[in-house]
Amino acid sequence: MVDGQVRATPASGAAVPPERRRVAIVGAGIIGSSWALVFARAGWEVRVFARHAEVRKSLHERVRQAAAAARPIAPDVAPSEILSRIEVSVSLDDALQGAEWVQESVEEDVEVKAALFADLDRRAGAEAILASSTSSIGASRFAEQLPGRGRVLVAHPATPPHLIPVVEMVPAPFTSEEAVAQAFATMRAVGQVPVRVNREQPGFVMNRLQGALLTEMFSVIRDGVMTPGDVDALIRDGFGLRWAWLGPLQGVDLNAPGGIADYLGRYGFMFDQMARERGAPAPVVTPEIVATLQGAMRAALPVEELPTRVAWRDARMAALRALRDYMR
Amino acid sequence: MVDGQVRATPASGAAVPPERRRVAIVGAGIIGSSWALVFARAGWEVRVFARHAEVRKSLHERVRQAAAAARPIAPDVAPSEILSRIEVSVSLDDALQGAEWVQESVEEDVEVKAALFADLDRRAGAEAILASSTSSIGASRFAEQLPGRGRVLVAHPATPPHLIPVVEMVPAPFTSEEAVAQAFATMRAVGQVPVRVNREQPGFVMNRLQGALLTEMFSVIRDGVMTPGDVDALIRDGFGLRWAWLGPLQGVDLNAPGGIADYLGRYGFMFDQMARERGAPAPVVTPEIVATLQGAMRAALPVEELPTRVAWRDARMAALRALRDYMR
Repeated sequence: MVDGQVRATPASGAAVPPERRRVAIVGAGIIGSSWALVFARAGWEVRVFARHAEVRKSLHERVRQAAAAARPIAPDVAPSEILSRIEVSVSLDDALQGAEWVQESVEEDVEVKAALFADLDRRAGAEAILASSTSSIGASRFAEQLPGRGRVLVAHPATPPHLIPVVEMVPAPFTSEEAVAQAFATMRAVGQVPVRVNREQPGFVMNRLQGALLTEMFSVIRDGVMTPGDVDALIRDGFGLRWAWLGPLQGVDLNAPGGIADYLGRYGFMFDQMARERGAPAPVVTPEIVATLQGAMRAALPVEELPTRVAWRDARMAALRALRDYMR
Repeated sequence: MVDGQVRATPASGAAVPPERRRVAIVGAGIIGSSWALVFARAGWEVRVFARHAEVRKSLHERVRQAAAAARPIAPDVAPSEILSRIEVSVSLDDALQGAEWVQESVEEDVEVKAALFADLDRRAGAEAILASSTSSIGASRFAEQLPGRGRVLVAHPATPPHLIPVVEMVPAPFTSEEAVAQAFATMRAVGQVPVRVNREQPGFVMNRLQGALLTEMFSVIRDGVMTPGDVDALIRDGFGLRWAWLGPLQGVDLNAPGGIADYLGRYGFMFDQMARERGAPAPVVTPEIVATLQGAMRAALPVEELPTRVAWRDARMAALRALRDYMR
């Protein structure tokens, strides 16, 4: 399938078959080019605009390499097919033409983003969603004054999105719920896993989780308790094998017969003690949070199904170890 | 290979060929039975002692199931072969007979461990290492008074050790360096990944890392910023794909052209801000820790090899995604 080539008038949206959805990628560094791959792999028509000529020039080669390396994720889609759907635009207007989604991935500078989003809001189609890849700047800081602010939100990917599917969706208080719903549907349609962040806080949630773990690692290294290599091994040859299949909450849910409430009843004191030692002003394992977690875990998995799920987990960890040995 | 059957006198160590190493497993719950599998899979002769009759009785069946599920890790070792090397002992003395390693995995109770280690120190061979699977009790608290305390240490596994190889090795101040060296060699010989914890602190390091991450997750959920299911997805469909291959430090080292110092120069402020907000009394991203980390990362991987390593990482994440799709 190389439909990208059959468009009669490449510079216009008119000849695109109705089933071909179109995205504009603005900024084509590591993140932008990875987004281009995500959308093109899912069958979208992709137009990329980047300010720097060398970035534009190298785009196809960079996507080609990434697509070849990522082939196991979508074995039925040839890299050539993906490339055929990606066009480098000569102007922002050309890139925006007919796009129902605009993904901005330029530098982390609030002034640059504010100017760009003002432009995007003026020039993009009225129905287009305007999404930013920012990892740290809420849309309130660059889109509040825009007439079309209801369709602006943050869609912050992991690096790189064509390999790691989770995307933090961070609406501003002014983002419409319709736009949020449409944004979730679009992310799912291109194979990503959108999760909702209900507050525009520094680091959103993804980097807060990573930051909490890194901060503890830094403390352990600073205090001479463990070397950097060993502390990395604790995750790589430890929890990482489990977290490739299950989040940490479901992970501990499977490690006590009664689930996460049982687990925290046994070991919660330890987490409280550590948090206190690191400066936390109040206990972190409260009856309220335990009830919330147990409720969420049991809604997802009844307690009597825990043993089956443990067997599920174990088979997958064994397979991952075999894969690691194979790729060593 | 079913050498376990050729021992002429099963109750004595005399007829064991010199190449067959022997371990005593004391306590045979989830952890103890998994340890039995680890050692037997590596060719050791395993004797298991447990107080409760039903635990002893069910041991072989539990190990058989676990060995079958874990077959991808050691495809050349048949579960029947593993089982043939595991014997349930009728007494502690029988289990200790000829053992060069004793792995204790009884309940987390300092009194119980103190009494047991006194027994082990009296009855085990003079050269045997005595290791505890405890996740929270330093050996200082249960072995300080023992004549043979120099050979006692904690070898705290992840759950379960036959699937997750990392083991926290926590010597007490009185543990001899010879015993530590021997313990590391033994863990490596049975396919585990030992890491050294230089201080007997609560939660050692493994559970501190997990605790830091869980604590941040609890805060995010408590504050209504994200649902439990979504916060789990941030790891499972996010960092977990990376951390199955690389620790978090090496992970960020690959996410900036100049390595981890470059990365922390760009984003360290965010981690400091979060830590401060959670009560940390001082900055966590100090020039000292940045220098330590950059030094450790560059000793492992020169900066010019970072791009190659990124490609290595990407190929592995793509393969893992294919494995996940396959096992969905």
